[in-house]
Amino acid sequence: MFPLLDLLRRGALHRTRVEAFSDGVFAIVVTLLILEVRVPHLEHGTVAELKHGLHEVVPKVLSWAISFIVVCKFWINHSYIFSLARHSSYALMWINALFLMAQAFIPFPTALLGEYPYNPLAVSFFGVVLLVNTLLFVWMHYYINAYLLHAHMHRVSRRTLLSRSMVGPACYALGAGLAWVSVWAAFAVYLLTPLFFIVPLQPDHGLAVAEGLLEEPSTTPKPYPGHSSVSV
Amino acid sequence: MFPLLDLLRRGALHRTRVEAFSDGVFAIVVTLLILEVRVPHLEHGTVAELKHGLHEVVPKVLSWAISFIVVCKFWINHSYIFSLARHSSYALMWINALFLMAQAFIPFPTALLGEYPYNPLAVSFFGVVLLVNTLLFVWMHYYINAYLLHAHMHRVSRRTLLSRSMVGPACYALGAGLAWVSVWAAFAVYLLTPLFFIVPLQPDHGLAVAEGLLEEPSTTPKPYPGHSSVSV
Amino acid sequence: MFPLLDLLRRGALHRTRVEAFSDGVFAIVVTLLILEVRVPHLEHGTVAELKHGLHEVVPKVLSWAISFIVVCKFWINHSYIFSLARHSSYALMWINALFLMAQAFIPFPTALLGEYPYNPLAVSFFGVVLLVNTLLFVWMHYYINAYLLHAHMHRVSRRTLLSRSMVGPACYALGAGLAWVSVWAAFAVYLLTPLFFIVPLQPDHGLAVAEGLLEEPSTTPKPYPGHSSVSV
Amino acid sequence: MFPLLDLLRRGALHRTRVEAFSDGVFAIVVTLLILEVRVPHLEHGTVAELKHGLHEVVPKVLSWAISFIVVCKFWINHSYIFSLARHSSYALMWINALFLMAQAFIPFPTALLGEYPYNPLAVSFFGVVLLVNTLLFVWMHYYINAYLLHAHMHRVSRRTLLSRSMVGPACYALGAGLAWVSVWAAFAVYLLTPLFFIVPLQPDHGLAVAEGLLEEPSTTPKPYPGHSSVSV
Repeated sequence: MFPLLDLLRRGALHRTRVEAFSDGVFAIVVTLLILEVRVPHLEHGTVAELKHGLHEVVPKVLSWAISFIVVCKFWINHSYIFSLARHSSYALMWINALFLMAQAFIPFPTALLGEYPYNPLAVSFFGVVLLVNTLLFVWMHYYINAYLLHAHMHRVSRRTLLSRSMVGPACYALGAGLAWVSVWAAFAVYLLTPLFFIVPLQPDHGLAVAEGLLEEPSTTPKPYPGHSSVSV
Repeated sequence: MFPLLDLLRRGALHRTRVEAFSDGVFAIVVTLLILEVRVPHLEHGTVAELKHGLHEVVPKVLSWAISFIVVCKFWINHSYIFSLARHSSYALMWINALFLMAQAFIPFPTALLGEYPYNPLAVSFFGVVLLVNTLLFVWMHYYINAYLLHAHMHRVSRRTLLSRSMVGPACYALGAGLAWVSVWAAFAVYLLTPLFFIVPLQPDHGLAVAEGLLEEPSTTPKPYPGHSSVSV
Repeated sequence: MFPLLDLLRRGALHRTRVEAFSDGVFAIVVTLLILEVRVPHLEHGTVAELKHGLHEVVPKVLSWAISFIVVCKFWINHSYIFSLARHSSYALMWINALFLMAQAFIPFPTALLGEYPYNPLAVSFFGVVLLVNTLLFVWMHYYINAYLLHAHMHRVSRRTLLSRSMVGPACYALGAGLAWVSVWAAFAVYLLTPLFFIVPLQPDHGLAVAEGLLEEPSTTPKPYPGHSSVSV
Repeated sequence: MFPLLDLLRRGALHRTRVEAFSDGVFAIVVTLLILEVRVPHLEHGTVAELKHGLHEVVPKVLSWAISFIVVCKFWINHSYIFSLARHSSYALMWINALFLMAQAFIPFPTALLGEYPYNPLAVSFFGVVLLVNTLLFVWMHYYINAYLLHAHMHRVSRRTLLSRSMVGPACYALGAGLAWVSVWAAFAVYLLTPLFFIVPLQPDHGLAVAEGLLEEPSTTPKPYPGHSSVSV
């Protein structure tokens, strides 16, 4: 299916450094976003003036908050799918690099959204960027599931994984389209999409947790990560 | 008490990546703050002019220094409470994400404080942000203590933990209120609050240190982390 | 050959912190680059105006994307050569520091390229910076191969390593020269150089993977990292 | 000597997170510095104009390069002294926090130096900041040597450690003073100070390397880190 990737499939590297590099990128992306929220310039420095200045900053804070939650959601799911992999290959490193590139791009559409929250192009662009991020994430999940799964884990069928994983991309595509009708409808879709998938799905495909994670009997009856297909 | 969180309580993930991601965010928050301290623009570049320019920068340096200490305090206590957890769950990851979001927001009120140090709204806003940070931290501590504690550690009673942990939030709330009377009184409260709790409380609730930390007999008689309830 | 380095060759430090520090620098370099892509300023905030503004931002996004891929390529190869080292010495830490300094410089020529994509000096400067980065990387690879190789790994002959490693520098030097004839020719060379070496070379020199990486029988017949000389 | 610190001496925490947090701060400080080197604004975008613009940027690049080397030097020595500690205490975490605060401040005097390289106050200020950094580092080294040393390591006598460690601070103090006579003399001192100590001193006090670092017989006769007192 991906001939170039078959060549890249070589290599058996510890996951340590891919995870450290990724965690670094996630942490920076999430924190850089606040730089867009600038201190308002005041003429006289009165309380009334500052109150007005803070009001104007609200859309930027909101778009920052949405992006923060979205990137954290990606990060949590990234931790999950990497915990399924027995090691990293060069192909995984490159797919991950492309995914991180898409993550690192998020501050730009976020700043755009904070600056022009009623412009349909800005709102739609935000959805398209999240769509691309989600597709790259699904590709990575698909790749790990197909080639790098720990031996003691159940492989999810490709059809199941892809059909489940496409809920997220479909939502973002819908939002990007709706933006041209109503920016408010698009905002609602963007906000609801991550909320919908914040609770992991039932572990009905039996993807077991990586060995050694459970140090002692857990107090919860079902200690598995739970989502066999991660929707983002 | 938190029905959604009961669902999220699943998952048993190594603490490694949550800690790495958090350390990254802390490190960036703490370092980004210096970006607000800008090089003064000089007309002729004389020593007298630069001396004047550096004087004007002092409030920004001070607000940066306060925030640096405050964030380091949170980081140290974050290390402590995570060392109590036997593993991470999805709920902990999300509470942690919200807490890190509040941490990542700190550069904004800090810059505001450095720009308008005599504006009561700016001073009060700084206190409110620290209040929110502390409440999220207490929530996280409460959650770990209730659900994720290592088996060999003594669980602190909820009442004890909450009553002790509320000293910090109460102080920041007081400071945020006092700002409207006198910004100097608020500054004093903000400065004294972390100093008050810099020394860990007596280990009277017997929370033991995570196994394996003490490699050899320590020269100090009481090698325990000491604070059963972390006040921030 | 390097008398000062012979003194520096002392020290036997875990690779952990060198790798963590390097991963941090790589992650920041890669993410900082997006800060150059600024939100366009619009007069009326119309869709047509924003579309025009986004068009103008395209060269910056492209130069960011090229640099992102280039730095990821360096990062992947950095992971590879460090996995060959049994430990770190002070010399390796200093060569690595110089290399990271050159990596940290990349955002500047990238921003220059995004601002003045048709200026031959800007295009040539970009190639020279990548040339210096590649030479420092080859030095580091050479050093690890000569002095710090794991005992169970085959040492590549110096001649082989250097002759193979010089393909990358030669390409960037060519691109930097071609920029004065045609910026498009230079862009083509810059783009093709990493693509050429994205697939690891045959493992004909038998550099084995670091022990312990392969936890279980791999499904691929040749599980070795594969490139005995890493071209960048 | 430090009564408050005696209370803080409790706690026995893994070094992992202190090191991760510190590595993050070091990596960001070192990379942030390049942000001060801005793309020159050109009227017509000609090669001659860009060449002129690049010339003007040279002092900023130089001050960035000096700071990069200085911070890397601190980082390498930080790795060294932390490898001597058997664990971290709250006191060490706080001393380290103050040290990192001083490190995080370095971008400001660096930017100042790059903007006003001939202003004696800017040049002297740079030296004072490095002086403070070095003193905090010596304090941290002193503290680890006195209270947290691995059991199998030789403790250096306080007198020896302090007398040797004071070479660095003395040099920076000299440079900060000389700046008022001649900025060039100060530059020379700033440049020579780290070069002087780049090669570790003889391991005449027998501080052994942390166990487990040497996985196999080294090819070098003296595998010890070598500098019993780290001068910075």
